[in-house]
Parts: sequence; structure tokens; C-alpha cells
Amino acid sequence: MKGHLKFILLILIHQVPFHSLFSQEEASEEKVFFIKKIYEEALVNQKSYQWLTYLSEKIGGRLAGSPQSIAAVEFTHQVLDTLNTTSVINQPCEVNYWYRGEKEQARIVNNALVGTQELHVLALGGSGSTGIDGVFGEVIEVFSLDEAKKLGVKLKDKIVFFNRAFNNAHIRTFSSYGESVDQRVFGPNLAAKLGAKACFVRSMTGKLDDNPHTGVTIFEPQFYPIPSVAISTNDADLISRLLQKSKVEIFLRTHCEQRGKKTSYSVIGEIKGSEKPNEIILVGGHLDSWDVGGGAHDDGAGCVHSMEVFYLFKKLNYKPKRTLRCVLFMNEENGLSGGKTYSEISNKNGEFHYAAIESDAGGFVPKGFSFDIDSSNLKLYSPFFASWNELLSPYDLHISKGGSGADIGPLKTQKGILFGLTPDSQRYFDFHHTALDRIEAVHPRELAMGSAAMASLVYLLDQTP
Amino acid sequence: MKGHLKFILLILIHQVPFHSLFSQEEASEEKVFFIKKIYEEALVNQKSYQWLTYLSEKIGGRLAGSPQSIAAVEFTHQVLDTLNTTSVINQPCEVNYWYRGEKEQARIVNNALVGTQELHVLALGGSGSTGIDGVFGEVIEVFSLDEAKKLGVKLKDKIVFFNRAFNNAHIRTFSSYGESVDQRVFGPNLAAKLGAKACFVRSMTGKLDDNPHTGVTIFEPQFYPIPSVAISTNDADLISRLLQKSKVEIFLRTHCEQRGKKTSYSVIGEIKGSEKPNEIILVGGHLDSWDVGGGAHDDGAGCVHSMEVFYLFKKLNYKPKRTLRCVLFMNEENGLSGGKTYSEISNKNGEFHYAAIESDAGGFVPKGFSFDIDSSNLKLYSPFFASWNELLSPYDLHISKGGSGADIGPLKTQKGILFGLTPDSQRYFDFHHTALDRIEAVHPRELAMGSAAMASLVYLLDQTP
Repeated sequence: MKGHLKFILLILIHQVPFHSLFSQEEASEEKVFFIKKIYEEALVNQKSYQWLTYLSEKIGGRLAGSPQSIAAVEFTHQVLDTLNTTSVINQPCEVNYWYRGEKEQARIVNNALVGTQELHVLALGGSGSTGIDGVFGEVIEVFSLDEAKKLGVKLKDKIVFFNRAFNNAHIRTFSSYGESVDQRVFGPNLAAKLGAKACFVRSMTGKLDDNPHTGVTIFEPQFYPIPSVAISTNDADLISRLLQKSKVEIFLRTHCEQRGKKTSYSVIGEIKGSEKPNEIILVGGHLDSWDVGGGAHDDGAGCVHSMEVFYLFKKLNYKPKRTLRCVLFMNEENGLSGGKTYSEISNKNGEFHYAAIESDAGGFVPKGFSFDIDSSNLKLYSPFFASWNELLSPYDLHISKGGSGADIGPLKTQKGILFGLTPDSQRYFDFHHTALDRIEAVHPRELAMGSAAMASLVYLLDQTP
Repeated sequence: MKGHLKFILLILIHQVPFHSLFSQEEASEEKVFFIKKIYEEALVNQKSYQWLTYLSEKIGGRLAGSPQSIAAVEFTHQVLDTLNTTSVINQPCEVNYWYRGEKEQARIVNNALVGTQELHVLALGGSGSTGIDGVFGEVIEVFSLDEAKKLGVKLKDKIVFFNRAFNNAHIRTFSSYGESVDQRVFGPNLAAKLGAKACFVRSMTGKLDDNPHTGVTIFEPQFYPIPSVAISTNDADLISRLLQKSKVEIFLRTHCEQRGKKTSYSVIGEIKGSEKPNEIILVGGHLDSWDVGGGAHDDGAGCVHSMEVFYLFKKLNYKPKRTLRCVLFMNEENGLSGGKTYSEISNKNGEFHYAAIESDAGGFVPKGFSFDIDSSNLKLYSPFFASWNELLSPYDLHISKGGSGADIGPLKTQKGILFGLTPDSQRYFDFHHTALDRIEAVHPRELAMGSAAMASLVYLLDQTP
């Protein structure tokens, strides 16, 4: 009841005059019609699936600095050239190129219960190599950074194993991720600080399987980036069970290298606005991905969603009043260099992003958008929320307060409104940062609905007075 | 805007007094808490996926009258026995046992462009056999029943090919199905009436692939049930293309038999209500499925959803005030004998179903419920809709006007409220009535969320004064 009461009070306070409601209704009919067209076009004539197949299968994993990432820049630049853009540029940014090298090897050695057994692991981005001889040590299991800190010197020369599982009780899997990912991002650095030989981190998923999930880990410059891997949930559970009964010793070999700084690029396509060219509406995703798999959901989907917004407007002959930008950011996964560089240059040029929408949560059925804005400027947009929600509700889309996206986050200081597309999250962490994040994990209709949702919101934003 | 205005007017008309709003708020806190518990229990300790694996993989396709359908009766009866039920019975119903027999064969023969080419087909339920020699004839393509009627005698001794495609522009795939399925249900009978040798029907899906979709077709008793098959969308498109250039002749052999009447059973588990035992709240799905595939989404999912409602209440120690029934109906796919028999007996016994919820649209993420009720009785339930929607909205569930389910439809005359669970529909017609409708097509969390959605609504219904 609470929400409804609040809504009535708001209406009563605003005292909307009746004639304005009627003129709104006419405008609304036109909007209803155009959004329907957007969805029909996306569902029947989508390009996003074909583009994503190219990105994830022909090009493949696209870690910033890799040859694949440059191929992705070239491909998407070419596509944007065909989409009625006024200009397409590659915006340089400096990235650290981390390279996995040969496949990792990890095994339990001479265990009392299972003898020697291979483990499914993936080195974490930013971690160092074991060297050719590998490392060997005893596993100490912990469930939090705090527990590791308390153990302190007891972790010296050990292999620290962070094994706090996803809490599957959350209905939004990103909540589970948010509660667990500190282990991967900060665990290896802490282990290094405490003198550990290596670090294992339970994969960031609520699913039990043999599929390890990589991702970034961050080392402070004063510590050696110890060899650190994600281990599959099945193997994590096995080690945990074995530790109830006996000591567990593990051999690990990784071959990662830091290949130094490279120049890479974010790709920016622009359609100049006909009436308010200085107010920018941005759609974007990130072009880089992890090297394993094809980066299909993360974040090829966000890139093709964004390009398809332009494609749909072209097909429907829609000429935007504000300037539209499609920005495919480089290096979200391990540095955010593309997003940071973009906002620095934008600020320097005195630009104003009226709105920015990032898609970086997969190509699943969209449930709506979360928004983030400096509270001082919310009043500019809040009069439109009710009508946006009304117009988007036939498509099961809802706008609510929340985050936006890592790449567009720095634009918040421009005081426009930031949105994140929020697809259904149930399957996302089956694939995230794994070898399974390929085109087969994406459903064409679900993908197209994401493009249509973004195009619909961009259209509504562009139509605001 | 229209919807919101209507809501304000309704509120103003009802003139809800302030004290009643506050007491409602307290009750609401308790409900918020219990629904959260339901979801957590379902997501962490679900049984539905395990039960569904047994139904779809150990037992398999369960056409009414088949040995598998009886195995499914036995299995689900045993499960319901463990779920705090007051009683579990098998309610007899009479079904016609249609039997597919050996695998169908179909091929294009001696075509000017492709020579001889095998086709992917499945005989339609209720269709007759070609006999051992098969049939051979020229294909005439039509796109509607009307077009076939107009051709009239020109279809005599031909093979009629209904090839109207799904309209993929609909965001709800059931709308596309609803617009196309007349071809499958009534096309073969019309072809028989016009003297055709056999009938091909484009598979009921918007996806282009080699996977034929079976389903029921209905013949009037005065016509011979001519051999009739569903053909995969890829093959349907091939034939259509060939027909632009040349005559197409097809050979078809099917081995279907009508094996006559059999006694089968719907399984009914009941928990007697503690306060209003004469008001029944039913949850159900149908136990039978097509013989190909495992009937995982259609409708093993609905059966395990319904059983899991009881399981969740048991785990959470919830004692219902009204009588709860879990009804697993037999023979939805080709006769509806279970549903009809159930309502006849219920009416004879003077029962009142306060509410009934059917899950028969797959094990995907639930989006809410559609409801159907005799308008004369809507006032009994309408005061609760706003609070139900409010309480279910954190789970992205919404209640709206629509259909319910084929099995519970006959209960409408009892003037209670009927609901259909409405899962996301994007992937449903990739699997529906095909060999691919197996456990691999079901995601455990998505399935569990359906159970939790149903349990939450049953709980709210049970709590109404």
C-alpha cells in the first residue's frame, strides 16, 4: 500500500490540470505507436545476433591490448559507419595488456583420500606467473578477508583458498556476486601481503559445475602479484570436503605475463541532434572481454544492443533531436581506461550528457532500467518517470533507483541521468567470465528485446522537452 | 497516464479510512516476510528440478494412455504422499490412447532442383497411418484454412501444406502461437474433407531449425484421419522456395494407431484447511505430455511447480486455513479428459474452488499471473488486487486479466478465481512439443522461481478474510 499512497499524494500535490492531461494523452498515443514499431522491428529484423556471432565467434575473447580487441574495434567501427552516423572515431586510451599464456595446471597431490587429482582453474587477470617449475604448498581455507587477516602469519608460505559461496537465496544474482567478489578482487593481494605462495578463489557463481570463472584481481604495487586462480565450484567443494579429513597439498603452474602498456581504443559513433546538439544521449557497452570464451554476454551483448539502437532508428527513419552517441568502451574488465578517458575528454570539452545508458548485464530478457543521478538534478527528469513507466510497462520494463554502469559512472559529475539496462539475471553467472560465454548462451529474441528496450528509452529521453 | 488516473479514481471512490490502512500495513509486514522466506527456501533447497529430472528423463514422454503416463502417476503420487498431505488419490478418467509407432519418414522425391531429400517431420496426435506403402503426392501450399477452402476440389488427391509462419513481431510468443495453431488443429480435417491424401503443417515456432513440433489435430468422425505431420521450419521454407520454381512431390510414411480407450488417472493431493475446509485453493499442471522429448517444460514444470508449493509450505511449517489441492491432470494434450472429469466430480460434490492456479506455460522466470473469473463474482477478490501486486512486485510479478489454464477452465462455473502462471515466453516455442523438451532446456533457478511465485499467491489467497 505504501507505494500507492505516496503516488496519490504526489499527484495531489502537483495538481495536474485536466487539459494538460489530455494533451499528454495525444503525445502518448504517438509514443505508444513508435515504441511498438521499435519492438516489432527489433524482433523481426534484428542485426544484433549476427553482429554478436561475429564478435564472439569470429573474433572471440577480446582482452584489452590483445589483437582480438583491435579486431573488435575495426569491426564495430565499420558497422557504425553504416548506421546513419555523422561521425565514427576511435578514441585512444592506454591499457595494461595482461596475457594468460599457456593453459594453467593445478592438481591435488598425494592426498590421503583422492591421491592426485586435476583441478579446473583459470588464472585471475593481473596475477603473476608461477614460473616454469610451478608452486607447491598446503591449502588453508578461509571464508572472508577478515578471517585471512586474523590468521595472519599462519598463511605464510601457504596456498590461501577463499571459499565463501554465493548466497543463492537472493533473487537477483548480482546481489550474490556483490557479496562474494571481494574475495577475488582483494583476496590475492591480502594473501601476498601475508606471505602466501599462491591464492585460489572459489568461482563467482551459484552453480555447481566444473567451469572456472576468471576476472580481475588487484595488487598493490608494493606486493608481488602472487599466482592466483579461480577454481570451479565443484573442485572448491571437493577441497573443502577433503580438508575436513586431511591436509590438502596442491601443485599450480600458471604462465601469465604483464605485457606492458598498449594503446587501444573506444569506438564512438555519433548522430548529431537536429534541435539540441549540445545535449548528448549516450548508449554503450564495453568492447573488451575476458580472453576465455567469446565475451558474448559480457559484454558483446551490450555493444550490439547499443549499435542496434542506431540501426533501429535508421530503419524507422527517426531523426534524433539531441545528439546520440554509441560508445563501445575499451578495457572495462581490467582497468576502466576507456570509460575514464572518455569522461575526462568529455569534461575537458565542456560537454553535457543529458543521459547515458549502459548495457553490461547480459543479453537476457530486459526487466527495465536502474537509474543513478546527482540528487541536485533529479528534478529535471522526475516529471517524466510516471509516463515512461506507463509507456514501457507493456514490455514488462520498469525504471527504478539503482546503479548504472562502470564505464559511464564517471559521467555522473556532468549531472545528467545515468541508466543501466537490467536484464533478467538468473543465468548470467552460469557464463560470466568463463569459456562458456559464447553465442550459444545467447537467445536471439532475448537479445533483440534488450536493443528494443534501450531504443525505447533513448526515444523517450529524446522526446522530453 | 490513463491507468494511473483510473487507479486514483478508484481509490477516491472507495474512501479507504486511515486506521484500516495502518492495520493493513502490519499484516503486510508479516506477508512481506513470509513471501521472502518462500523465495529463499525455493532458491536454496528446491526439489522441483530433481523431480522434473525424474519425470522427463527417467520416465520420459508421457502421452495419456501410455505406460510412461502410468509411471508418472505412480511417481507423483509417491512424492505427494511425503508432503504433509491429508490424502492423495488417483482420480480415474477415460483417455484415447494414440500411438505414434515407428519413426515417420518423409522425403521430397525427384525434384528438379534438389532431387530426393529427407524431411524432418513428426506425425500429429490423432492423425492416421499411411499404411506400410506410404503415400505419394503433389504438394499444394496454402497459408490459411480459408485459402484451402477456396481451392476446394483442387486439393483432391494432393498433399496439402499449411505454411503460415509465426509472426515474430509479438513480444509474447503465445500470441504468435494463438494466431497460427488453427492450421495444425483444424487444417488436416479440412484437407481430409476436401479429399487430400495427406497434410503437412509448418511447425508451431518462430525459430528456424530442423526440429519438428508435434501436437494435437482434430478430425470430425465422418472423415478419415488422413496422415498428417508437422514439418520443421527449415524444411517448410525449403519446400516453399522449391514451389516457386517447380512442382514438389513428397513421399510420406507414418505408422500411427488409435489404440482405443484406456483408464488413466489425475493425481490429487490434498491438505485439509484448518478454518475454511470447504473453500478449495487448487494448484496444478498436467501430467501427460507428448511422446517425443521428456515433457520437461510442457508440462512437467507445471507438475513440479505445484508439488513444490506443498513442499515449501511443509518446510516453512505453514498450515493452510483453506483446503489446498495439488492436482496433476491427465490428458491435457489430446482430450482434456482429466480436467473435464475433475470439474464434473467437483460440481457433483457441491465443491467450491475459491481459487485455482494452473502452471502450463513452462519453467521459465515467472512474470506474474493472468486471472479469469465470472464477472459476477469479481467483487469478492478485487479489494485484494492492489495489495497482492504490491507484495509480489519485489519479485517482478504482476497480476493482470487474461486466461488461466486448459485443465482448470471448466471450474469457472464455480465462480471462484482462476489464475494462470505466466512465465517469460521467449524460449518456450523453441521446445514445445519437440524432442528437445528435456531437462537440459530447464534452468533450476528459473524453475524454482515459478514454484515460489505460485506458493506466494496461494499464501496470499489463503490469507484473505
